[in-house]
Amino acid sequence: MKRSLGAKTLLYPTPVLVVGSYHADGRPNVMTAAWGGIACSKPPCVCVSLRAATATHGNLIARKAFTISLPNSAQAAAADYFGLVSGRKTDKFAATGLTPVRSELVDAPYVAEFALVLECEVTAVHELGLHTQFVGEVKDVKIDEACLDEDGHIDTAKLDPLAFAPETGAYFALGALIGRAFSLGKSFVAKEGS
Amino acid sequence: MKRSLGAKTLLYPTPVLVVGSYHADGRPNVMTAAWGGIACSKPPCVCVSLRAATATHGNLIARKAFTISLPNSAQAAAADYFGLVSGRKTDKFAATGLTPVRSELVDAPYVAEFALVLECEVTAVHELGLHTQFVGEVKDVKIDEACLDEDGHIDTAKLDPLAFAPETGAYFALGALIGRAFSLGKSFVAKEGS
Repeated sequence: MKRSLGAKTLLYPTPVLVVGSYHADGRPNVMTAAWGGIACSKPPCVCVSLRAATATHGNLIARKAFTISLPNSAQAAAADYFGLVSGRKTDKFAATGLTPVRSELVDAPYVAEFALVLECEVTAVHELGLHTQFVGEVKDVKIDEACLDEDGHIDTAKLDPLAFAPETGAYFALGALIGRAFSLGKSFVAKEGS
Repeated sequence: MKRSLGAKTLLYPTPVLVVGSYHADGRPNVMTAAWGGIACSKPPCVCVSLRAATATHGNLIARKAFTISLPNSAQAAAADYFGLVSGRKTDKFAATGLTPVRSELVDAPYVAEFALVLECEVTAVHELGLHTQFVGEVKDVKIDEACLDEDGHIDTAKLDPLAFAPETGAYFALGALIGRAFSLGKSFVAKEGS
């Protein structure tokens, strides 16, 4: 039996996106957002939605660039802090002891200590209501070599990304491997032919 | 030391979104997409990106509506199958033994057996390249009562949503609870004041 919960943004899980940008005076800033994801394969694009009230929103409008740094489970407290306070008055890098690195490809900083980084140019801005959606074309992905397996592929367990649950506001680590895409479902393809 | 992987859509995790729509002849269809997420809080909006080659893309253009049904880990094979074959020639509901339910709010069907359902009206269509991004305003969320706790909140463990890892194409269950948003990061706020 299903119960109606009303019109809400309940979708599970969301990623935990630490968005890097420069203030007008050149200071590096980061904020954490969970409303976003992958938007297009070619060109490779991601999207992230920000409220106009945030400093990061203004920075992305002005600089047309941002980074996404992905925290792991041990970095969850810092990532959560990045969403708690405004970068207008606070140096969030100094407060957490993390290191801003200037991207060589886009006009934005990323977090040195976070293993996976996407460097993005803003290619579209969509006003959706309370949130503005920024579409960013990925110019490069950088990853800590420690998170790669022997074949140079990303080892998800070593990356250890956070998954976010709206409503309860819980951060989870990833758990058991359930199966592989374009493989697990083949059992039903076989049934079709039988 | 970071290594460059090139311009790719590597963001972790993504949700596993089973998108329900009606074909022109009224047959219900579902496909699975991982490029999407929450897009706006007010009005509540989600987004999902689809290739123009898919039947679902045409259905959403024509009907201006879709649903998202969230599979749990035991339903991963069916969800994967929904992404393996085209609904143009195949009745994916019949093949998996799952049940289409006509939404009373939007012109689209959802999967009865999947615990969480979002009923959405298409409010914007963004051509990004290979993928078209559909923004859907959430008209209602419906959930199996078995996934609610005593207070009527979603119990994420009972919902048991899938998390997807691009590149490796792995489906994961959620794992350990790491902490709570707007709480975990307060340790750094305390340090500011010290």
